Amino acid sequence: MPSETYGKFVSLTKDYAIAGQIGGLLGWDQETCMPEKGAADRSNQLAFIAGIEHERQTSAELGNLLDKLEQEADEDVVVATNVRETRREYDRAIRVPTDLVKEIARVTSLAQDAWRKARAESNFALFVPTLERLLDLKRQVADKIGWKTEPFDALMDEYEPGTKAADVQVVFDRLKTKLVPFVAAIKDAPRRPDLSILKRPCPIEQQKAFTRRVLEAMQFDFKAGRVDTSTHPFCSGATPNDVRLTSRYFEDYFPASLFGLMHEGGHGLYEQGLDAAHVGTPMGSSVSLGIHESQSRLWENQVGRSRAFWERFYGEFQAAFASMADVPLDDFYFAINNVKPSFIRVEADEVTYGLHIMLRFAIERPMIAGTLAVRDIPEKWNALSQELLGITPSNDAEGCLQDIHWAFGMYGYFPTYQLGNLYSAQFFAAAKRAMPGLEDQIRRGELAPLREWLRENIHRHGKRYRAPELAKLVTGSTLADEPYMEYLEAKYKPLYGI
Amino acid sequence: MPSETYGKFVSLTKDYAIAGQIGGLLGWDQETCMPEKGAADRSNQLAFIAGIEHERQTSAELGNLLDKLEQEADEDVVVATNVRETRREYDRAIRVPTDLVKEIARVTSLAQDAWRKARAESNFALFVPTLERLLDLKRQVADKIGWKTEPFDALMDEYEPGTKAADVQVVFDRLKTKLVPFVAAIKDAPRRPDLSILKRPCPIEQQKAFTRRVLEAMQFDFKAGRVDTSTHPFCSGATPNDVRLTSRYFEDYFPASLFGLMHEGGHGLYEQGLDAAHVGTPMGSSVSLGIHESQSRLWENQVGRSRAFWERFYGEFQAAFASMADVPLDDFYFAINNVKPSFIRVEADEVTYGLHIMLRFAIERPMIAGTLAVRDIPEKWNALSQELLGITPSNDAEGCLQDIHWAFGMYGYFPTYQLGNLYSAQFFAAAKRAMPGLEDQIRRGELAPLREWLRENIHRHGKRYRAPELAKLVTGSTLADEPYMEYLEAKYKPLYGI
Repeated sequence: MPSETYGKFVSLTKDYAIAGQIGGLLGWDQETCMPEKGAADRSNQLAFIAGIEHERQTSAELGNLLDKLEQEADEDVVVATNVRETRREYDRAIRVPTDLVKEIARVTSLAQDAWRKARAESNFALFVPTLERLLDLKRQVADKIGWKTEPFDALMDEYEPGTKAADVQVVFDRLKTKLVPFVAAIKDAPRRPDLSILKRPCPIEQQKAFTRRVLEAMQFDFKAGRVDTSTHPFCSGATPNDVRLTSRYFEDYFPASLFGLMHEGGHGLYEQGLDAAHVGTPMGSSVSLGIHESQSRLWENQVGRSRAFWERFYGEFQAAFASMADVPLDDFYFAINNVKPSFIRVEADEVTYGLHIMLRFAIERPMIAGTLAVRDIPEKWNALSQELLGITPSNDAEGCLQDIHWAFGMYGYFPTYQLGNLYSAQFFAAAKRAMPGLEDQIRRGELAPLREWLRENIHRHGKRYRAPELAKLVTGSTLADEPYMEYLEAKYKPLYGI
Repeated sequence: MPSETYGKFVSLTKDYAIAGQIGGLLGWDQETCMPEKGAADRSNQLAFIAGIEHERQTSAELGNLLDKLEQEADEDVVVATNVRETRREYDRAIRVPTDLVKEIARVTSLAQDAWRKARAESNFALFVPTLERLLDLKRQVADKIGWKTEPFDALMDEYEPGTKAADVQVVFDRLKTKLVPFVAAIKDAPRRPDLSILKRPCPIEQQKAFTRRVLEAMQFDFKAGRVDTSTHPFCSGATPNDVRLTSRYFEDYFPASLFGLMHEGGHGLYEQGLDAAHVGTPMGSSVSLGIHESQSRLWENQVGRSRAFWERFYGEFQAAFASMADVPLDDFYFAINNVKPSFIRVEADEVTYGLHIMLRFAIERPMIAGTLAVRDIPEKWNALSQELLGITPSNDAEGCLQDIHWAFGMYGYFPTYQLGNLYSAQFFAAAKRAMPGLEDQIRRGELAPLREWLRENIHRHGKRYRAPELAKLVTGSTLADEPYMEYLEAKYKPLYGI
C-alpha cells in the first residue's frame, strides 16, 4: 500500500506532466495548423507553459517529498521506479542555475541564425565563435550536473540515461571493423537497383490512404491518434490516448511518406503502448531516445523494408498506384533497399546511416572534452568521412554544417540514432526467437502479434528499466553490434550478390 | 508616460491572458482534431490551465497593483481602461469563494447529464431538481458579486458588462409590439419561397472553396486564421494573429456552411481587428457577447442575406454548384430569406429569432429572481411560445428542454443573442449613413471598406467603451429596436408583398 507521501508525490509529478503535455500539443499545432502570423504569440505561449513546468518540476515541495520517500525506501517496483527516475530528473533540473539556462536559451537562439548563415555560405568559420560559446556553456552544464569519466556523459544522459560514452565507443569500434568493409563490398557489387522506380508518380491522396492502411495493419489506434502533414515528420505523444504522427508527401517520391510514416508509426505504437494508468510518472514514460528510435527503426526497416512484408502488401500497393503496375516485386524490393554512401545523414540508407553517426560521435567526444578545437572540425569531419564512408564532402554545407543539432544545443544526442538501429536489430532477433512464426505472420500481414510482443516486453514497462538493463532482459545482451550485422548480412548479401 | 506600477500590472495581465489563449487552443483542438480517446486527458489539461489562469487572475499581487493604480488615477485612456476593466474582472473573480466555484462545476457536470436524459425522454420534471440546485448556487454567486435591482444583472454582467435587465426589457417590450404583428403578417402573406432550392446537392469540397472565397472577400486574413470542421460551428480567437473558425458541411444543405461561415467570419474579423499591441489586456479584448454577436450577425444577415451581395456573388455560386444553374437569383434570394415561426431557436430565421430570445428572457428573469417556480417553466414556456410565435410545442424537448445553456450554468446569456441582432442593425445603419456608397460597394463585392469601418469604429477600441456607450458613440443611440425593425421591414415587405 503506497504511503500518503507517495500519493502526494505522484499528484505533483502528474501535475507538471500535464504542462508538458500541453507544451507538446502547442508544438504539434505550430507545425501542423498554426497560421503563419501566429508565430510570435505561440513563442510566448510555449515559454509560459515551459516556465510553469520547470517551476513545478523544481519545487521545494517536490524535493522534500523525494527526501522522505527515499527514507521510506518502498520496495514496490512502481514506487521505486518513480522515485528513482523523478530524483534523476529533479537533480538535473535544480543543479543547473536559472541564469545558465537563460544564457543557453539566448545563445542557442543566436546560434541557429549563425548556423543558417554559415550553412547558406557553406563557411564553417562563421559558426565557430557561437559554437565555442555554446560548448563552453554546455560544459558548465555538464559540470553542474556532474560526471565521472567525461563531460559528454552528463550531456548524453539527458537523452540516454544510464549509457556512457565509453560503452558506446566499444560497440561502435567493433561495428566499424565490420561495417566499413561491408559497405565497400556493396559499393563494388556488380548489381544495382533501378532507382527510377522510386520516382514514379503516386498521387498524394492515394499515398495518404495507403499509409493509413499500413498504420492500421501495424495496429496504430486511430481512436487514440491521428496523422497530419508537416515540413519535418515527427511523432508527438501527449498521452497514450492522443498520439500524433506527421508526414510529408511528394507525388514523385513515395518513400518519404511510406517509410516516414512506418517510422513515426513505430514511435507512435511505443507511446500508445505506455501504461495509461501511469501517465505523468516515469512508469508511464519511455526509456530513452535510443529505445524510442529502436521502435521506429524496427517498423520502418526490419518490417517495412522486408521482403516478407511486401509479399503481403505489394498487390495492394500496385492497385493503389497505377504507375507501379509493371514493376516486379523483386525490383521494387531492391529499389527500396538501395545502399550507397552519401554525404547527407538524413538521406542515408539503413546500412550507411550508422557510419554517419559514428563520424559525429568521433567528433563530439573530443569536441566536448575540449581536446578538439572547434576550428579544426571541418578537417576532422572530412577525414572521417573518407575513412568511414569512402567519400569526402566538397564543402562544409554537405559536411560538418549539415545538421542543426549543435545549434539547438543538443550534444550527445546523435549516438541515440545508431543505438536505435542496434537495439532494433536486437529486439527483432529476440522477437523472432520468441515467435518462430513471426516472419510468416508478417508475410500474411498479421502484424498484431509483433505489436503485442513489443508492448509486453518493452512499452508497458515505462522507465522501470534503463536501456542497457532492458536490452539485457529482453535480448540477453546489453548494446551489441552482432544482431545488427547479422540482419544486414542476411538481407544485403543475397540482394547484392556479395 | 505610464508608471512602473502600471508596467508590472500589464505584464501580470498579459501573463494570465496567455493561459487563456492556451485554454482556447486546447478547446479548439478538442472540437476539431483530438482523437476520441483523448477526452479524459484533455479534461485534465483544460482544468490545469484554467486553474493557472484563475490563480494568477486572483493573485494578491495583482490586487495590490490595482489598489495602487487606482490611487494614481492616470487619465491616459489605455491605462484607465485597463485598470477599470481588470478591476471589474478581478472583483468578480475574488468575490466568489473557491468552494462555491467547485460546487457549481460539480453540479453543472451532473446537470448536463440530467438535461440530456430529460430531453431524451422529453420530460422536464427529470431536470427540475438539478436546475433548482444550480439556480440556488447561481443566486449565491449573484449575491456575492452584488447587485442593485435584481440578481439577474449580476449574472448577465459576465457576458454583457454594463447592461441591465430592466434596460433590455424596455427595448424588448417595444420590439414585441412591432415584431409579433410583423411575423403574423408574413405568416399570412400569399407568397412563399421554394425551399427545395436549399436542399439541392452541393459537393462539400466546392462548399469549402466557395466559402473560403467569400471569407477572403470579407477580408478575413488567412495568414492569421484558418477554417476547420466541427460538429458545432464556432470562432476561437487566441490572439488577433491566430483566429480559428469552424463549420459543418451538408451536401444537401449548403446554407449551413455558407451562412455559418459568414457568421463565424464576422466574429473572426472582430478578433483579427483587435489591437495586437494590447493583446492580453482589456484594451485588446472584445466589449461583450452582444457586440461580438452584432459583428457575426451583420456579416451573416445584413451582408450575406442581402440582395446586393448576391448580385455580385451569385454567378460564382452557380458556377461552383451545377445543381443551382437553373435557379433564378430572385428565387435563391427568397429561399435564403424564408421566414416561418418554428420551435427550435438554432434553426430560426433572422426575423423570428428575436422572439425565441424574448421568450427565454421572460422566463429567466423571474426564474432567477425566484418568483417563477422551476416546475412551472414548461407551462409558462408554452404560453409564451403561443403568444410570441403563435405556435405551442407539443413536448418539452421541442420547448423548454431544447437548449443546454442552463445546464451549463449560463444564465443571463440568452439576451446577448438578440442584443447582437439589434446592435447589428444599428451598426449597419450607421455604416450606411457614414458611407453612402456602401450598398453599391457590396453590389460590386467590395467588402473591404465595410470591414475597415467596423475595425475603425468598433474593433480597435477593445474594451475602451462598454456596449451601451459604444453603441451611442457609433450609432447615436444606446440599444434600440428601430433600426432593426426598419431593416426587417425594408427587406421583408417587398419580399412577401405585405
